[in-house]
Amino acid sequence: MDARIAQLVTNADTRFSRRGPESDVVFSSRVRLARNLAGYPFVDRLSVFDREKIVSTFTKASAELLDPDSYFLLNASELEQADLLCLLERQLVSREFLDGEQERAVLVERAENFSIMVIEEDHLRIQALAAGFDLETPWRRVNDLDNSYEEHLPFAFDEKHGYLTACPTNVGTGARLSVMLHLPALILTNESERAFRAIQKMKLELRGLYGEGSKPLGDFYQVSNQATLGMAEEEILHHLLTVIPKVVEYERKARERLVEKEEQQTLDRIYRGVGILKSARKIRAEEAMSHLSYLRMGAHLGLQQEVPAEKIDELFLRIQPAHLEQAAGRPLDEDEALAARAEYLRRELA
Amino acid sequence: MDARIAQLVTNADTRFSRRGPESDVVFSSRVRLARNLAGYPFVDRLSVFDREKIVSTFTKASAELLDPDSYFLLNASELEQADLLCLLERQLVSREFLDGEQERAVLVERAENFSIMVIEEDHLRIQALAAGFDLETPWRRVNDLDNSYEEHLPFAFDEKHGYLTACPTNVGTGARLSVMLHLPALILTNESERAFRAIQKMKLELRGLYGEGSKPLGDFYQVSNQATLGMAEEEILHHLLTVIPKVVEYERKARERLVEKEEQQTLDRIYRGVGILKSARKIRAEEAMSHLSYLRMGAHLGLQQEVPAEKIDELFLRIQPAHLEQAAGRPLDEDEALAARAEYLRRELA
Repeated sequence: MDARIAQLVTNADTRFSRRGPESDVVFSSRVRLARNLAGYPFVDRLSVFDREKIVSTFTKASAELLDPDSYFLLNASELEQADLLCLLERQLVSREFLDGEQERAVLVERAENFSIMVIEEDHLRIQALAAGFDLETPWRRVNDLDNSYEEHLPFAFDEKHGYLTACPTNVGTGARLSVMLHLPALILTNESERAFRAIQKMKLELRGLYGEGSKPLGDFYQVSNQATLGMAEEEILHHLLTVIPKVVEYERKARERLVEKEEQQTLDRIYRGVGILKSARKIRAEEAMSHLSYLRMGAHLGLQQEVPAEKIDELFLRIQPAHLEQAAGRPLDEDEALAARAEYLRRELA
Repeated sequence: MDARIAQLVTNADTRFSRRGPESDVVFSSRVRLARNLAGYPFVDRLSVFDREKIVSTFTKASAELLDPDSYFLLNASELEQADLLCLLERQLVSREFLDGEQERAVLVERAENFSIMVIEEDHLRIQALAAGFDLETPWRRVNDLDNSYEEHLPFAFDEKHGYLTACPTNVGTGARLSVMLHLPALILTNESERAFRAIQKMKLELRGLYGEGSKPLGDFYQVSNQATLGMAEEEILHHLLTVIPKVVEYERKARERLVEKEEQQTLDRIYRGVGILKSARKIRAEEAMSHLSYLRMGAHLGLQQEVPAEKIDELFLRIQPAHLEQAAGRPLDEDEALAARAEYLRRELA
């Protein structure tokens, strides 16, 4: 395990334990820019030499732009799979970055407010994250980074189309804005349909936690813009700022109805979850997340005071496989992971 | 609620909280005799007048035979349905007695070691119960009662066939011996087949808890002799004394294997059950009994020390619907009963 990643993991004050606006329903907000260096082919045609050149150029630029104590740069080839998985679980790299095989790197801000993947689908993917519903902070941050780096690294840009990207859907601003929603009540009451329609009508994409097509874990859904081609940044932002507050409202109303009409049933769900998390000897991540989901809703509704929302959000992160291995200090087989997760939860909730 | 039944329910030291031999696997033992008074038709042809006559004759005989402080006699017509159900849950009357409509009565020993139903399928059903695997104690008790009553009430008896009963299968000794087994490990490991075959080979009947054909609740099974016609008492007893120790052994071996081969899984099952019982806000009897079943096994295996076996056996009784109503002091609708059961369990296990 890389010592710098270990440091992130042991850090107590993380983005995950912080509260942001509307955090009862919005877990986190993220803005990502896709940029490519002028004078190089896109990633799928990069030579080994070009890859190394891009990484070293980027490294040099970073050294000039950023406070050296505020970040570290990891070369994927130096990392074990468990390290990479840990970064994925912390949303600092993408699944695509994880699955890559050739030279690639990632710059991680120690405070984890932003990271820059070097040679993912594009040469650079600059992303910033914030707790709760707050696209403005990461938006400002990626723009600052974009402007700073552009002074050192000429980006591929076309007067007509804007920033050029490997995938045409990203051409233009190259910006992807996304928001992670926690929608347990809409799912529980089978009322998600209306919210999901509103999202799709705005040409926004809806995905379960951990990637496309996957079953949403812990009732988390990621909403993001689909394409940037031909769309101004403001338009994308406007779409999200229009639809997300609606979905937040739908979820809150559904929660209120749960409390009004099915209080006993809702309390039962929440407390059974606590009971199981406090006592299981083996538990899968999916199951634990499903209990944590109701616990999170219960904390925000004041239905349970046993486990505060900040703690729950940390637990969502720390029961992931790579984080469990990190805590154990060694690889865990499937059975060991189930037991380690249960033990960790028992200890934290005792 | 009848005050005398309420007294039974509030009694702390009951048959249910006592330990008997092999009580890790054998919950209780019961012996029942079927007797009919000479000079009267069988129950299905009894006139109202005859019914009253039998009850009053029996009442008089009881007053002469028993210490008046040691028992009480309840006339079914004076009882509410909830009272009768409470007696059923305490195994003092049968389902058939409960469902009857005409004049009938039950004599209940305050210590609940025996009861006598008057006008069930036969004129008299004398039954005695003991904790654990102990047929001898109830056997002696019903025989003593049989002999005493026979001096005051001439029983229908035939030199060739023995005691005459309404149902031919009971003719002869009229004795039904039964043992309540707790077989969670055999069920869990899918190894019950061999035990059940051994039981059936001995012409013994196997039933789930609470009557024929019902799904066994809490992994409890009742084993009893099928017919008494042409069989000596000793033969019936011999069959049970042969097969029950075998089944006890099978169950114990299955438990040992669970601990050896699937300790984590078994602990997980037990502790999840504790977790749910301690935290649920609504719970059905079936579910609660299924958790209590593993908890009971865990107590006997020393896998959990949180809840002692005696306590668990009490809980099995007290989470039944009529006992919950008794504790609440009023009738409960379905939702209230689910909540009352959960609340009771939370309080008792806190």
